Amino acid sequence: VTYELFYWPTIQGRGEFVRLALEEAGTPYVDVAREPGGMKRMMAALGGSGRAPFAPPFLKAGELVIGQTAAILLFLGQHHGLAPLEEAGGLWTHQLQLTIADVVAEVHDTHHPVSSALPYEDQKQEAGRRAAAFIDSRIPKFFGYFERVLGGNEYLVENRLTYADLSLFQLVEGLCYAFPRALARLGHDYPGIAALRGRVAARPRIAAYLASPRRLPFSQEGIFRHYRELDRASP
Amino acid sequence: VTYELFYWPTIQGRGEFVRLALEEAGTPYVDVAREPGGMKRMMAALGGSGRAPFAPPFLKAGELVIGQTAAILLFLGQHHGLAPLEEAGGLWTHQLQLTIADVVAEVHDTHHPVSSALPYEDQKQEAGRRAAAFIDSRIPKFFGYFERVLGGNEYLVENRLTYADLSLFQLVEGLCYAFPRALARLGHDYPGIAALRGRVAARPRIAAYLASPRRLPFSQEGIFRHYRELDRASP
Repeated sequence: VTYELFYWPTIQGRGEFVRLALEEAGTPYVDVAREPGGMKRMMAALGGSGRAPFAPPFLKAGELVIGQTAAILLFLGQHHGLAPLEEAGGLWTHQLQLTIADVVAEVHDTHHPVSSALPYEDQKQEAGRRAAAFIDSRIPKFFGYFERVLGGNEYLVENRLTYADLSLFQLVEGLCYAFPRALARLGHDYPGIAALRGRVAARPRIAAYLASPRRLPFSQEGIFRHYRELDRASP
Repeated sequence: VTYELFYWPTIQGRGEFVRLALEEAGTPYVDVAREPGGMKRMMAALGGSGRAPFAPPFLKAGELVIGQTAAILLFLGQHHGLAPLEEAGGLWTHQLQLTIADVVAEVHDTHHPVSSALPYEDQKQEAGRRAAAFIDSRIPKFFGYFERVLGGNEYLVENRLTYADLSLFQLVEGLCYAFPRALARLGHDYPGIAALRGRVAARPRIAAYLASPRRLPFSQEGIFRHYRELDRASP
């Protein structure tokens, strides 16, 4: 089966966590909304009845339609060796993914702390306060946790690659784009995370993907945005 | 096996979604942090190495420790008949849960849009703007979605109770506590959701639980808080 990924065609966003898993799995997929007529198909699926997803990204696998990034990764992890098959390991991988998803939501809200429906410029003041708190308290808390989970190992789970590693890689990439000053000491403060980032980037399929036109650039439209005034050195 | 639930002992919070599933399952569990010495055990587990959870709630099932509300429910759903066992139904239930979890995070941020580390009083102005946007745009979007998923059925998934129904019940209870004016027309605008709320509340085990001292009251310390100035009629 050729998977169909449905996501906004011009940004990495949450869809990127799915793209990375599909690329590492080496399984054929179509990034539907980037094809002619694809946006129309995506919007129709969202408005549908029955098991319609709430929002992109969603993945079509034959008859199965799966929404929510973490649920899609749960599925891909089981079917493509990107997570342990046994229950304890599978749940542990999923738990890490859900924690990464929590960070991603918080990153989004650093530039949109009031409403996604309003432009950044209309919530700039609130964004300043929220971004400062995120850099000062939340990054250390989350990164300290993942560093502890790594505990000197190469990967987060049983020392073999899972989708949680791909997601942590993307989180770090995004944060380094959005907050270069805050992340300046990444390698020093979180050597395990920095090493994992390099290790994932060097995996043959991921390296090929990152160098291809399939990898969209970061931009001021996605979840990770660089606003100079929101960035600051970490404490 | 007697489950051990670890969660803050004085609030419903995210732990409540797990409590409701445990109660409906009718399975024995200990709410650890509400027992003598329990808080100490919870804090020790959080700081631990290996597969330590990031934050409460987490569930101990024998040797297995599961963090993240949605992952705990995924586990309980499979082991206690609170979700379909086959893959498509299980993923669909989980997807709904993850969408409910997204709403829960947004509700929290209506009173803490800047930082969880600061008291509400220090982010009151930002909270006013965020709560207004939540009431005007987000509640209609999410509730419209769940009403559409229900589509006239009694429950969200295959017309039988799953943990997603218990969670939707709790979300509605919480929102009615926090924003009584915004939710005043619930039965009129979202008759399916209102009926599901009553249906869940009337289930024998849930009714017994809600009437017991095990059910903590809503308060100004949890996720759902009632601040008069944040509430307003829905559009």
